[in-house]
Amino acid sequence: MLPKPLRGVVPPMVTPLVDNETLDVEGLERLVEHILGGHVHGLFLLGTTGEAPDLSYALRHELVKRVCRQVNGRVPVLVGVTDTVFPESLRLAQTAEKAGASAVVAAPPYYFATGQPELVEYYNHLASRLPLPLFLYNMPSHTKVMIDPYTVRTLSENPNIIGHKDSSANIVYFNTVRHLLREREDFSILMGPEEALGEVVLMGGDGGICGGANLFPQLFVDIYNAAVARDVETVRTLQERVMTISGALYGVGRHVSSFLKGVKCSLSLMGLCSDFMAEPFSRFREEERSIIRSRLVALGVKVVKE
Amino acid sequence: MLPKPLRGVVPPMVTPLVDNETLDVEGLERLVEHILGGHVHGLFLLGTTGEAPDLSYALRHELVKRVCRQVNGRVPVLVGVTDTVFPESLRLAQTAEKAGASAVVAAPPYYFATGQPELVEYYNHLASRLPLPLFLYNMPSHTKVMIDPYTVRTLSENPNIIGHKDSSANIVYFNTVRHLLREREDFSILMGPEEALGEVVLMGGDGGICGGANLFPQLFVDIYNAAVARDVETVRTLQERVMTISGALYGVGRHVSSFLKGVKCSLSLMGLCSDFMAEPFSRFREEERSIIRSRLVALGVKVVKE
Amino acid sequence: MLPKPLRGVVPPMVTPLVDNETLDVEGLERLVEHILGGHVHGLFLLGTTGEAPDLSYALRHELVKRVCRQVNGRVPVLVGVTDTVFPESLRLAQTAEKAGASAVVAAPPYYFATGQPELVEYYNHLASRLPLPLFLYNMPSHTKVMIDPYTVRTLSENPNIIGHKDSSANIVYFNTVRHLLREREDFSILMGPEEALGEVVLMGGDGGICGGANLFPQLFVDIYNAAVARDVETVRTLQERVMTISGALYGVGRHVSSFLKGVKCSLSLMGLCSDFMAEPFSRFREEERSIIRSRLVALGVKVVKE
Amino acid sequence: MLPKPLRGVVPPMVTPLVDNETLDVEGLERLVEHILGGHVHGLFLLGTTGEAPDLSYALRHELVKRVCRQVNGRVPVLVGVTDTVFPESLRLAQTAEKAGASAVVAAPPYYFATGQPELVEYYNHLASRLPLPLFLYNMPSHTKVMIDPYTVRTLSENPNIIGHKDSSANIVYFNTVRHLLREREDFSILMGPEEALGEVVLMGGDGGICGGANLFPQLFVDIYNAAVARDVETVRTLQERVMTISGALYGVGRHVSSFLKGVKCSLSLMGLCSDFMAEPFSRFREEERSIIRSRLVALGVKVVKE
Repeated sequence: MLPKPLRGVVPPMVTPLVDNETLDVEGLERLVEHILGGHVHGLFLLGTTGEAPDLSYALRHELVKRVCRQVNGRVPVLVGVTDTVFPESLRLAQTAEKAGASAVVAAPPYYFATGQPELVEYYNHLASRLPLPLFLYNMPSHTKVMIDPYTVRTLSENPNIIGHKDSSANIVYFNTVRHLLREREDFSILMGPEEALGEVVLMGGDGGICGGANLFPQLFVDIYNAAVARDVETVRTLQERVMTISGALYGVGRHVSSFLKGVKCSLSLMGLCSDFMAEPFSRFREEERSIIRSRLVALGVKVVKE
Repeated sequence: MLPKPLRGVVPPMVTPLVDNETLDVEGLERLVEHILGGHVHGLFLLGTTGEAPDLSYALRHELVKRVCRQVNGRVPVLVGVTDTVFPESLRLAQTAEKAGASAVVAAPPYYFATGQPELVEYYNHLASRLPLPLFLYNMPSHTKVMIDPYTVRTLSENPNIIGHKDSSANIVYFNTVRHLLREREDFSILMGPEEALGEVVLMGGDGGICGGANLFPQLFVDIYNAAVARDVETVRTLQERVMTISGALYGVGRHVSSFLKGVKCSLSLMGLCSDFMAEPFSRFREEERSIIRSRLVALGVKVVKE
Repeated sequence: MLPKPLRGVVPPMVTPLVDNETLDVEGLERLVEHILGGHVHGLFLLGTTGEAPDLSYALRHELVKRVCRQVNGRVPVLVGVTDTVFPESLRLAQTAEKAGASAVVAAPPYYFATGQPELVEYYNHLASRLPLPLFLYNMPSHTKVMIDPYTVRTLSENPNIIGHKDSSANIVYFNTVRHLLREREDFSILMGPEEALGEVVLMGGDGGICGGANLFPQLFVDIYNAAVARDVETVRTLQERVMTISGALYGVGRHVSSFLKGVKCSLSLMGLCSDFMAEPFSRFREEERSIIRSRLVALGVKVVKE
Repeated sequence: MLPKPLRGVVPPMVTPLVDNETLDVEGLERLVEHILGGHVHGLFLLGTTGEAPDLSYALRHELVKRVCRQVNGRVPVLVGVTDTVFPESLRLAQTAEKAGASAVVAAPPYYFATGQPELVEYYNHLASRLPLPLFLYNMPSHTKVMIDPYTVRTLSENPNIIGHKDSSANIVYFNTVRHLLREREDFSILMGPEEALGEVVLMGGDGGICGGANLFPQLFVDIYNAAVARDVETVRTLQERVMTISGALYGVGRHVSSFLKGVKCSLSLMGLCSDFMAEPFSRFREEERSIIRSRLVALGVKVVKE
């Protein structure tokens, strides 16, 4: 079921919430179909975009079960199990495996910063206990730790570690990881920031975990396909569209949470799901919402909600 | 039961573990008595030194119940409820309240970095839902966020927020918070790093959350008492002892986890409790353990375990 | 003489030194010819790779005069005037203008960190006093300050500011700057890290300031030309060569200075110029030098010096 | 002339400027007498507060000569020679020695970040070439490098390195350095931030480099003397006054430069010297100036200028 390496566009799905401990079930179902309708190559639950660290375990387990049931094998489902509590990562992975997910994804534990040897131990221990194959997840802005390219190479020798998602935005880091693993054709290396999807695929990268694909899944799939086909002109044109979206929707408001709030607010305006956010964030208030609304309209997006 | 402000030495207790999900119950009981035997002014469970973010909730709840029962009102118990999952903080606080704890302590959520306005919202929301009064906890090295002194002042106006623990080690920050709250005699401001306990109490600070008080509780209490009595000579002499301990036991090994590993290893050698550590850390191996052993001996500490 | 925008490969030239205050004149002459022999599109003196902040002003002025005389209009010369002392930046720019250089380049002053409004004031003031057009230079790892993309756009409205060099390695930043200035076809946006040259030119970027072009100028020119021609296959193949060079030569030794030391050591072994380095660095000792030597041989490079 | 160790209050003098390359000579003379009138124990020229890295060398040399002549042995003069250009540090030290200064002070070179072994080499090389004894200067917020406590201890073995100024504000760092050098009674360890002067002297530290002593030199000398006399009550009272000043004058405006701008603006309003600032900063405009004015009045300071 899971291609090796996994290639393409794997959206990190937003988690639609009614409140702190309740899924927006209808919104969730609409969102899943909306994303799959864009012909994506997989679905990534419970990443940073999914607000995973802020969600209760009960809700995380429920989400995994519901989405896997709904997806029903149409695409591989990846489940984020990043956690500071080791046994909770395992329990979530067990639920993922039972529900039919294809792999799990884990960033380093994010309270205590670890050294590289500790990371090697941690990931090898984790992989040895997991019922599903593991993607590493480099997210230094949130975890305070960069998974060194040589650490990635070391860990890639573990047969249960099958890929790496890099959200550092550091292109030297990304290209170094790709270079060090250039002979490992079965190991997937995926770019986090959607603003660089086109170019890394043109250069031979495997694909991207694009947050904006919650909103516009087909756009990112089109970029991926154009890049695989080496159609530079189309990649440029579509990637420019991504930059326009990014500039319009992800930078409203003062905080680093602007991206998440902008995506959730847009989804709400598009009629897909609730924009409730788990603590410590809260949804955009009317002032920011009206900015997002007018920008969506300017982008040609149909706004169906107030 | 809880003095306002809380003053004195409130050790951040280590969590004795048999394995990932099991308390070292006997070690825990010995450790609690060892610490209380030092005439400390309170006990802080589930802080950074307690490895709280790495422990399963079941274990955290069990720890709170066991220790509160054992302490049985001899000193106020503070319970760390720092978490990325808001409802889990609440649930732990409810257990703490039922078990007889006096207050809870919360650092900012530590996956997503928040701005100061978001922190104000977060803490006010949290305090409004808690069954116990709240101490703020500034720990920027782990949470990536400094709780600005003006944010502390704003939050201090919430009647359910009664104190602040600062582990930044930034003395300008600490003194600025104290200055901004100089008229709030009921608000407790406690220093994290034990290396500065004596001087901040001499200057009028309320006390400290000293990790080394797991090992040598009376030493820190003696420093506190000498500082309250303005006995500068004794403060200097005893604080020098703290620096010697810090240099001997907290810097073995390569990683930032050296402090935690050194304290747990020392407790094990002193026969108090297990040195098992939760992921992502692991206890010192024999090489480092033998260094700690000889340093304890040099400090005049009775080593009773291999 | 200076195309607008400047496009292509503009190597940041190493500064060959005999000692702290003396140029290796013969080495310098050889190095200039070696680089120009690679058909580069310009030459950048006194950047980070040129160790500019560590060189005395007398030496910087002499270098500019010598190299401009030698280049004699064959390519545009850009001169780094980054400095914490404003009048010294101006004096160096005056020398550059008299010597026939085409433009100057300035990173933010690097002792005091500045806010974005201060950066706007600083750059506008600087540009108003300069006798040559100015390139901005984003180098946050060394200056502690990111020139915000919106700051770049604001500054681009100054007619004397004609381009931007970004050495942040942050691909989202780079693409955002390009997007914000997409209508400014006369404004040059150049990538610092050579590990990303090919892809950014494929995507429409103007070129790169590639440190490795001191060693292998033609390689980077070939990548640039292939990318302009949208020959994805060649770009990939040659860029892989760059990664191999980067892995072999830039990471020997423990310090962040490994890149600079590796390039100077390689140049020395290739018989081009001295490897003396200004304080606070020192050249590789024999141990590291022998590693570089064998790696150059493995890369097929002719080593002519011991 | 220079006591070993140097103890007491050594104000880091502001550099009064008419413009970018011209000293405010009359203001300078008034400021020197104002500071010496406070019975300080030394005078530190060309530190961070002195905007040294932004001043041309001609101006730095002139300042050293003028001030040394004026001070004429009344107190030891320390001269900052921090620079990215090694020979310029030496030249400035030679001028300092000829002018009669007692010592020089050097932070790590601040463009390229160095590792600890490189710092040891750099400082030993520098000390071996200097005509005056050297104080180390830890200023990680500006230099990006922490001089490790063990590096300080290693360097303290160089007979020409006689002290350490720490501006990190990290109290654990400061106390660790003091502890490691506790047997070196001839080695001076001075605290940068004035907000912690009293307590570190109470604990046995040697004194402070207090920026606010440009404004209120006697206040800091009184704190120092009270702390030496172990008069805890007076130390607390006066240190509270420092916090009030700090809160009133150092935090106006948005930028990290608020401290420098506030001090210079206050000096101008007090009729002592010009508030011109070298690039990249500029003096407070009327809006901020009027805030400073009213706060000075509230502090009971005589404002003599508009």
